[in-house]
Amino acid sequence: MALPKNVTLVEVGPREGFQFEGIGQPDKISTADKIRLVEALAETGVRTIQFASFVSPRQVPQMADSEAVCAGITKRPGVDYTGIYLNDVGLKRAIATGKLTIAGRAYLTASEAFSQRNQKRNLAEDLAMQRKMAAIFRDNGYPVEHGGLMAAFGCNYEGDIPRERVLQMVASLHEIAAEVGGTLKRLSLADTMGWANPELIRRTVGAVRARWPALRINLHLHDTRGLGIANVYAGLLEGVDEFDTGLGGLGGCPFAGHKAAAGNVCSEEVVFLCRELGIETGIDLDRLIDCGRLAETIVGHALPSKLLRAGTARPARSTEAA
Amino acid sequence: MALPKNVTLVEVGPREGFQFEGIGQPDKISTADKIRLVEALAETGVRTIQFASFVSPRQVPQMADSEAVCAGITKRPGVDYTGIYLNDVGLKRAIATGKLTIAGRAYLTASEAFSQRNQKRNLAEDLAMQRKMAAIFRDNGYPVEHGGLMAAFGCNYEGDIPRERVLQMVASLHEIAAEVGGTLKRLSLADTMGWANPELIRRTVGAVRARWPALRINLHLHDTRGLGIANVYAGLLEGVDEFDTGLGGLGGCPFAGHKAAAGNVCSEEVVFLCRELGIETGIDLDRLIDCGRLAETIVGHALPSKLLRAGTARPARSTEAA
Repeated sequence: MALPKNVTLVEVGPREGFQFEGIGQPDKISTADKIRLVEALAETGVRTIQFASFVSPRQVPQMADSEAVCAGITKRPGVDYTGIYLNDVGLKRAIATGKLTIAGRAYLTASEAFSQRNQKRNLAEDLAMQRKMAAIFRDNGYPVEHGGLMAAFGCNYEGDIPRERVLQMVASLHEIAAEVGGTLKRLSLADTMGWANPELIRRTVGAVRARWPALRINLHLHDTRGLGIANVYAGLLEGVDEFDTGLGGLGGCPFAGHKAAAGNVCSEEVVFLCRELGIETGIDLDRLIDCGRLAETIVGHALPSKLLRAGTARPARSTEAA
Repeated sequence: MALPKNVTLVEVGPREGFQFEGIGQPDKISTADKIRLVEALAETGVRTIQFASFVSPRQVPQMADSEAVCAGITKRPGVDYTGIYLNDVGLKRAIATGKLTIAGRAYLTASEAFSQRNQKRNLAEDLAMQRKMAAIFRDNGYPVEHGGLMAAFGCNYEGDIPRERVLQMVASLHEIAAEVGGTLKRLSLADTMGWANPELIRRTVGAVRARWPALRINLHLHDTRGLGIANVYAGLLEGVDEFDTGLGGLGGCPFAGHKAAAGNVCSEEVVFLCRELGIETGIDLDRLIDCGRLAETIVGHALPSKLLRAGTARPARSTEAA
């Protein structure tokens, strides 16, 4: 398969990353800094920025200011501002901000053990909740077109995930959408705990695409064990043209059971990879690197990104033919 | 092309990494610690360990104890212990240790600007030196069978390197070997300054292999801008079965003109990638990770390896089918 000509990045650092940074210190990142970073990101050419989280303020107090962040942001035309919401209460909060792009979606988890820890629901309960959410989306005028599958490539608690289970759950997501009159158009496969490898990415994406050729596939990858960018390349080789990425390599899931932070694949490095491969992202890499440096200032420590250290400066490139 | 079934790693961390760590503080790593790490590495299943450097003790004082390290090491059968030597003086020092595996080899640099900085020689001078060295190798009973090309994928000073120049220089390496009655059997393509990307790796390896199908190709990759492991995967896709790697991501070239350290691709992560892809390396990953932790203790700071942080612990893998 040919590499895609264009790739879309969904910047999730201000949501996953700041959520992770704020564990145990909910006031670490100020509302003003969150607004500042989101507004800077909007100037880079990134078209979707996920920064809000409408989950329980008791369980995730560091995201309790999501409404305030929404209120403070001056929106830039052409940019989608998004958040997450795992139940009807959260969805209603998101809608109430009046600032966010809401997409009707259903999420399942390929590992029941992880679902119990992360969502506090077993598979049956999770299916019921997704059906309930799907109806709420429909009732609010948001057709359910997006699906997501967490822990799609393996789980720290349950181990490898059989491919058949992945396909079965993607079929369930199609059903959930269809039950409320929607059509699944986009599927996010998430390597929540860093179990993917390049060949597993290719086989899984290949199997899903073989069964649902019209489905647009997004990869949500974590660089837990150093294979993140190789997994992105494997996705590109399979024609995947949408990736969730985290500025500077920010990110990590507090319930994933790692001893250490394990951020999303680094936005700058994915943009750099695409640029080197001749793939258009529409993103100004130098501005994105500036945002990465701003993020480091905000969190108060170095982020994993190597590109932030080395820079892309290639002084001689323009003077010599490739 | 199919992925290789077996991959050989050449561990260069104790040479490139410690050389880099010791810039400006030549006594930072003690001789005893160098010996300790090399001996620990020999227990992992790694078959080649590069740790000595017989260059000018004035210019690179941190490697001036290479003879002492050699003298202190208890060799493990089946492991090759190696070093580098860029001129006849260095080669004679290496031979005199009586501990090292010496291979007759010729090295060129695809960027003349980098050669001037790194080797203090222009191309004509470098060719002359390689011819002189080749004769010395022959005269000492070491047939010239190995070649190396530095800056093969790009240069911070000169920019992109035309493929034709790469092929021309590999042809020169063949000639140098033939002139002293040798045959080039192995070629190391080095991404000295982190300019490679996965497609460039594939095109370059493909072009070299198309012209010299019998040549074994080694890739010496630096993870300067975050693409290192993707470049390894690209090499594997082209059937490359030998990689230079640095424990923990140690390494970097002091003359490469980066503001920051830019180590070799991380040994543990390459072994992990291979293991996940079903490729045999003969290396005990857990022991290698222990060595990475030892290296962090020795250098006194965290190394870039993500695997060292997250671990490979996959408690559930054995209980569930893949």
